Amino acid sequence: MTDANSRPALSSGAGVLDLLRAFAHDDAAADRYANDLAGRARTIEPTLKAFEYLPAQLAPRRPGPLSGVPVAVKDIIATSDMPTTNGSAIYRDHVPAADAWIVERLRNLGATIFGKTVTTEFAWRHPGPTVNPWNPEHTPGGSSSGSAAAVAARIVPLALGSQTLGSVIRPAAFNGVVGFKPSFGAIPRVGVHPLSPSLDHVGFFARRVDDVAFALSLLGGTSDADRHGQPVPAFQVAADSGLDPLKAPRLTIVRFEKWSRAEPEQQQVFDAAVATLREAGAIVHDADFSTLDRSAWDTINTIMLCEATAIYAELVERYPDRTSDRLKEFVTAGRTRSAYEYLLAKKQQEILRADFAVQMAGYDAVLTLPAFGEAPHGLSYTGDADYCAPWTLLGAPAVSLPAGLGKNRLPLGVQVVGAYREDFKTLRIAKWVEQALATDIGRPGVAV
Amino acid sequence: MTDANSRPALSSGAGVLDLLRAFAHDDAAADRYANDLAGRARTIEPTLKAFEYLPAQLAPRRPGPLSGVPVAVKDIIATSDMPTTNGSAIYRDHVPAADAWIVERLRNLGATIFGKTVTTEFAWRHPGPTVNPWNPEHTPGGSSSGSAAAVAARIVPLALGSQTLGSVIRPAAFNGVVGFKPSFGAIPRVGVHPLSPSLDHVGFFARRVDDVAFALSLLGGTSDADRHGQPVPAFQVAADSGLDPLKAPRLTIVRFEKWSRAEPEQQQVFDAAVATLREAGAIVHDADFSTLDRSAWDTINTIMLCEATAIYAELVERYPDRTSDRLKEFVTAGRTRSAYEYLLAKKQQEILRADFAVQMAGYDAVLTLPAFGEAPHGLSYTGDADYCAPWTLLGAPAVSLPAGLGKNRLPLGVQVVGAYREDFKTLRIAKWVEQALATDIGRPGVAV
Repeated sequence: MTDANSRPALSSGAGVLDLLRAFAHDDAAADRYANDLAGRARTIEPTLKAFEYLPAQLAPRRPGPLSGVPVAVKDIIATSDMPTTNGSAIYRDHVPAADAWIVERLRNLGATIFGKTVTTEFAWRHPGPTVNPWNPEHTPGGSSSGSAAAVAARIVPLALGSQTLGSVIRPAAFNGVVGFKPSFGAIPRVGVHPLSPSLDHVGFFARRVDDVAFALSLLGGTSDADRHGQPVPAFQVAADSGLDPLKAPRLTIVRFEKWSRAEPEQQQVFDAAVATLREAGAIVHDADFSTLDRSAWDTINTIMLCEATAIYAELVERYPDRTSDRLKEFVTAGRTRSAYEYLLAKKQQEILRADFAVQMAGYDAVLTLPAFGEAPHGLSYTGDADYCAPWTLLGAPAVSLPAGLGKNRLPLGVQVVGAYREDFKTLRIAKWVEQALATDIGRPGVAV
Repeated sequence: MTDANSRPALSSGAGVLDLLRAFAHDDAAADRYANDLAGRARTIEPTLKAFEYLPAQLAPRRPGPLSGVPVAVKDIIATSDMPTTNGSAIYRDHVPAADAWIVERLRNLGATIFGKTVTTEFAWRHPGPTVNPWNPEHTPGGSSSGSAAAVAARIVPLALGSQTLGSVIRPAAFNGVVGFKPSFGAIPRVGVHPLSPSLDHVGFFARRVDDVAFALSLLGGTSDADRHGQPVPAFQVAADSGLDPLKAPRLTIVRFEKWSRAEPEQQQVFDAAVATLREAGAIVHDADFSTLDRSAWDTINTIMLCEATAIYAELVERYPDRTSDRLKEFVTAGRTRSAYEYLLAKKQQEILRADFAVQMAGYDAVLTLPAFGEAPHGLSYTGDADYCAPWTLLGAPAVSLPAGLGKNRLPLGVQVVGAYREDFKTLRIAKWVEQALATDIGRPGVAV
């Protein structure tokens, strides 16, 4: 089957599994594809600014189940052959001595590290230069700004991000791509610059649910150097057929108190999605998540503020000229918090996790918003994490899927959340939702 | 071999392995022995006050490797068939719904729960009524006061204690018995009332190193309900011959800055022990533990104060009439600590643990004091934990052994500390030390 006509077309919009199927038939396709993407990056980057670093030449292709798949890596994740700035002026020229666990794993599986994507400063609020590929006047969200934008602009089919509050799910929604934050502990954070060790997760951006599921099936693991490791039960994702969707799931619809203040367009997109899923066979409930809604934000904010302060207070003191005001204010606020508050918040996290496990016994997944509204105008504010933070606090697997466009013609999504460590079940439900919604939001303006 | 003359004599001073050997030859011996001990307890308890609770009748004997071995249980450890007061007026009549993990394990192995021993209030400072069996005008130490005194007074051959700062090693030294605190995480604390989850350890009191080693070999384990579980590598301790002593160990002698203020008698007992061990073949070094000496106390105190406050602040508010001033002052001090201090102390704990692992690569064990001085006069102050706290902070296995008597004719000891999770190596060294010192301090006055 080397007839050129039978080769699957490799558009820039191909997903990871599409690529692997194509590469299996045509060994040279991978190199051609990588070169196409590199050219595409050169064209789009002056506008998009998704990358902190792009190597002059990609590393030679290695064998493995991800051979030839270009992966963009958020720039808080250490790479031994590329600078890792952590989005901070302090680390402007820093090249780590070793790859992060996840980068080493990617390379061993044959993936190509395509470049380093822009992150907010230390994955907190101070933004980088990346714009939203749907409208350069809007933020791409954060903190995994560049990873989300690079996948949306079709520069890479897969990108690594991280989430402490909403840094994968929110930019995925704002950029109209699939974002996946696995269960807490599913992927070691060794070599990923910490923000809050009780909350930090590594996650993925891609174009299809199958692709993030395939990534997790290969990239999950544990490391002695990350004590929070808690692997999700192993699951094979077939490279040729992807996930078997879990049909007619029992979904509980979670709107939270803030729903009433959402734009009518977002309410309409979400309600239409619920109606479509119900028609497609979902059993739809409305459950009471008001306790989580009321206490999640204070709890996660206290934990994050205290842990981040323990990590960044010295740095801010040592480098006052190379740290942002946002980071300084953050650390100043963190210094006022008591150990008592912190430990009660940690206890509250455990209580909420236990409550969630009990609640989820009655459902297969939560369906909710991934973000409040479209991507905000301007680049200074990366958006609201109120619909992400509760699930991050719980360490639950969460998937963001495109569901439509808002009044500014920017993407809106839905979020599927599952029970802790039921990542593949959650992804199978997300694939069913993806198929049932069959959303086509078109291509972002920058992705020419 | 049922000839009565060949039966090993079962004195009240027999150790656990002595008992098991005797029971193997004479099935009725276990019941006779248990009755003897119960009678002994009735005679001694009015003076000693080691027990918070003694059942009117012992439970019927069960089969297993500890069949017939009476074990006293510190009263912060839950027992479903006996009250568990936690040393607090709040819990005066509380009978837990379930056994602690360690109690359930003991019962499944055939051990007999002999009674509940006096603890300071919630294993903190407010003392119970137990006196030192060597001199009732002195404290037995704490917080595992009753467990140490009951073993010293020959009421039981084995007792459970717990240690957060020095609550096993210090009372073991003050009462002239063997105390053992295994590596952090070696025994699940499920059902053990917490004081500071980052520091709480379950430990043992007995008369011989072999006995605590045998106990650990049977009682180590993990439980999903205790996230700090980190089992020590499994090791068989032969019930008939006990441990194989590790001869001529490389010992590093740690005196700490406080040594210069120790009573001359304690200095002499310790120096004589070092000389004896050197003669017996130990390779003796003096290593620099000044960093640990300087920073351990602040670090452990911060962690403990913060964690205990998160546990006890509400209780103290709710029950002002049933909590001690000491607990109130403790919690009041804890409320002033910042999350930043707490998290830096936790980080410092990790750094000190890593440093210790590096230091211990050059030695087999540390030899140091188990407590500063003899048991203090009076019952209100349970003694100084300065020689215990550093090793508790490190989570290192520690054994206290009797080494002589002080100027008040109260016991003094030595402490053997090993590398993290090298519990059985540490115990084999402790057995060698025990044999080499061959200490005979006689019997305490109360143990008629």
